[in-house]
Amino acid sequence: MSFKKPDEQDVIYFTQLLGEAYVILDKEALTPYSKDYTEDLSFYPDVVLKPATTQDVSAILSYCNTQHIAVTPRGAGTGLSGGALPVKGGISLSMERFNKILKIDERNFQVIVEPGVINEALQNAVKEKGLFYPPDPASKGSCFLGGNIAHSSGGPRAVKYGTTRDYVLNLEVVLADGSIIETGANTLKYSTGYNLTHLMVGSEGTLGVVTQMVLKLIPMPKNTLLLLAPFASAENACEAVSGIFRAGGNPSACEFVEPEGFRLAANMLNMSFEIAENVGAYLLIEVDGNDSEVMMKECEIISEVLYNFQALDVLFAETAAQKEYFWKLRRGIGEATKHNNTYKEEDTVVPRAELPKLFTGVKEIGARHGFRTVCYGHAGDGNLHVNILKDDLSDEFWNKDLNQGIIEIFELCKELKGTISGEHGIGYVQQQFMPIMMPPHQLALMRGIKAAFDPNGILNPGKIF
Amino acid sequence: MSFKKPDEQDVIYFTQLLGEAYVILDKEALTPYSKDYTEDLSFYPDVVLKPATTQDVSAILSYCNTQHIAVTPRGAGTGLSGGALPVKGGISLSMERFNKILKIDERNFQVIVEPGVINEALQNAVKEKGLFYPPDPASKGSCFLGGNIAHSSGGPRAVKYGTTRDYVLNLEVVLADGSIIETGANTLKYSTGYNLTHLMVGSEGTLGVVTQMVLKLIPMPKNTLLLLAPFASAENACEAVSGIFRAGGNPSACEFVEPEGFRLAANMLNMSFEIAENVGAYLLIEVDGNDSEVMMKECEIISEVLYNFQALDVLFAETAAQKEYFWKLRRGIGEATKHNNTYKEEDTVVPRAELPKLFTGVKEIGARHGFRTVCYGHAGDGNLHVNILKDDLSDEFWNKDLNQGIIEIFELCKELKGTISGEHGIGYVQQQFMPIMMPPHQLALMRGIKAAFDPNGILNPGKIF
Repeated sequence: MSFKKPDEQDVIYFTQLLGEAYVILDKEALTPYSKDYTEDLSFYPDVVLKPATTQDVSAILSYCNTQHIAVTPRGAGTGLSGGALPVKGGISLSMERFNKILKIDERNFQVIVEPGVINEALQNAVKEKGLFYPPDPASKGSCFLGGNIAHSSGGPRAVKYGTTRDYVLNLEVVLADGSIIETGANTLKYSTGYNLTHLMVGSEGTLGVVTQMVLKLIPMPKNTLLLLAPFASAENACEAVSGIFRAGGNPSACEFVEPEGFRLAANMLNMSFEIAENVGAYLLIEVDGNDSEVMMKECEIISEVLYNFQALDVLFAETAAQKEYFWKLRRGIGEATKHNNTYKEEDTVVPRAELPKLFTGVKEIGARHGFRTVCYGHAGDGNLHVNILKDDLSDEFWNKDLNQGIIEIFELCKELKGTISGEHGIGYVQQQFMPIMMPPHQLALMRGIKAAFDPNGILNPGKIF
Repeated sequence: MSFKKPDEQDVIYFTQLLGEAYVILDKEALTPYSKDYTEDLSFYPDVVLKPATTQDVSAILSYCNTQHIAVTPRGAGTGLSGGALPVKGGISLSMERFNKILKIDERNFQVIVEPGVINEALQNAVKEKGLFYPPDPASKGSCFLGGNIAHSSGGPRAVKYGTTRDYVLNLEVVLADGSIIETGANTLKYSTGYNLTHLMVGSEGTLGVVTQMVLKLIPMPKNTLLLLAPFASAENACEAVSGIFRAGGNPSACEFVEPEGFRLAANMLNMSFEIAENVGAYLLIEVDGNDSEVMMKECEIISEVLYNFQALDVLFAETAAQKEYFWKLRRGIGEATKHNNTYKEEDTVVPRAELPKLFTGVKEIGARHGFRTVCYGHAGDGNLHVNILKDDLSDEFWNKDLNQGIIEIFELCKELKGTISGEHGIGYVQQQFMPIMMPPHQLALMRGIKAAFDPNGILNPGKIF
């Protein structure tokens, strides 16, 4: 698929459509749009466009479809698989002006919102009404809801509440030819033809551009309790995770963290956090609910499991400040790893009880190939983020030989009936590994779906497959 | 799309593949395969095939794809939209021999199961291990899990636990050309390319044939409580529904029933059930959980809401037998309506708080066009089954003029941001109404997806669009 580079004529069209302020051409101004949070990658778009309405998006796509200009939709650029990188140049379609919460429907526990709204802004707005939007990626303070839809983002609370997918009722989508559809209805159930809503979620901007979304809300749980349990053995911590659920626990977060993760976060954030020498891993576990007695009972059950798996201690966060302290550390790990080192982040996920095998395997593969990893993540749903650190490895090893190690990690995921991305998506950086997960005829099927939506392939080319 | 009628040569191939016992040609033996539970429709297949393995299905589809023979996959035939009717003749592909529960994975709360297993058989098998498979269509005692996937079937418990879709982790699917894929991984999260699992769910056998499935389980709640509340005003009952959720209730079922529904079911089942003359509607509400005190508190909150909306009474089912008594009545309504009368069942769904408008509208439309309806269903998720009764209406009205009334009901659904099927699917009978819900370019998009999976259109032709 080859694309036309936008020329002067095209820029005139875009400028007439959006106004000069929303058509960015200046190299320096393009720079922020050449990156996302993925490694140290950089791909410049030729033009950044900032539409404000569905009609703007429709006009842009219709035009680019006719002209064969590549269009890469962009949220806040916090993605970890390079999904928002304009790897084929062309247009970076920034959704930053779609920043309005249009309607909080308290009667139906729904919200109508634009894709450029920041995740946490939505959470806070609905919280004021006693309502809850659970998906909470680590980047919640800056990521856009549109990006969350692109990858079906999760976060710590996914273990109890599911990922973004589970909260999307209906989407307004502009297709590649500029036509507009609503993918579903604003209902809790939907069996009305192929489920285009679920097909759009996780499609990483390759099938259409979401311009409005209807999201499901639930009542806000009144309380949370937070436990931190250090373990001498990381393997025991992993084993404890499925033990919690088998004992009847239903935590609202169940996070695994290697000590190095907390150490890096504490350093970057200038927070003091003492890590005893004998600690091999932590579990950070949250319980939520409305009835304190029931929650305490659940914490007791969980504590018992943790001690059964040789936890060194089980610490309760007593105050809201303490809870926020631990969460801030936890959320900081990804950025801190990047801050400290060049790294690649793999988003491995396996059935929950296979986590010990995954963790042990990752360490064994790293030792064999000679690379260091920091592992952390959403252990409760078997989702382990594996940060591979460059340290003083040669560029050649990093850019070439390392791949074999990554391949072995992903093959292990597959062997354990897991997959290579739980919540970050495939985007640019993981597409080379897709053949590990599926045969050529399955990739061809995905390309067939893509072609049905976007015959000219203008939308986010160079991604997924 | 025109199809070849299977000839002698084809039958020889099928017989060699499956054995004579599993290739049905005899007209009388074909009769059960000419129907499902939809109205009084009947379409005969030319041949019924009963494969037993994925390889059988692969060989059949590969052969039929080359020969352009239509193949209609069939579960237990309990569908309500004619999805399993071989409207273009050809093969009825009965999945009845795929009847094994292959593995209950207690460590990961998952089950690997074949599509011909009966819903309730799975529920019972996992219950023995303390695990819970929530989706519970009224036909749970006879419907197949494969059919549940075809339409993303719901049932009373969907209001708290979601529909079939929410429990499908991974599917083994045979595509139209005989090739085999796994749609996902056995994980709680998945962001690895287009979500083919969610695309298959609800696709009504038009994209592939499911031969194995991995389903998510959850811990079995220890107790249930059941309330029955009669209301003088059906509108008040509808209004109470969203009131329950706004007050913090989270019932595991919240069913609306018009008295005529219970009356018909009681008659058919020979059960005594006294209905006071002033009753306009019932709400049947279940609460589940592990802590009796918490559950009682929730029932008190719900009762208060019910009385606030002028419930005449709130009756508690005291014993397991009483609970089963009410549920048996509730589940019997669909069949009883059919038993008693010719009827059409519409599967309307709207946002929960719009239920009063939907109910009032349905009654108004019926009065204006001169037809009688019995309404009941899963009020908690805004899903109202509207059974239209033929009574002594003329065949001409029934087959022609009635359509205008149905169109108005569906237009009302759309106006209320709902849709024309919440859980029964589009199948054969609702496809004519799809243009109400979506523009031609959206239907074309669905056909494009279909073509990517099944270029020759052999799979379940004449359905959805």
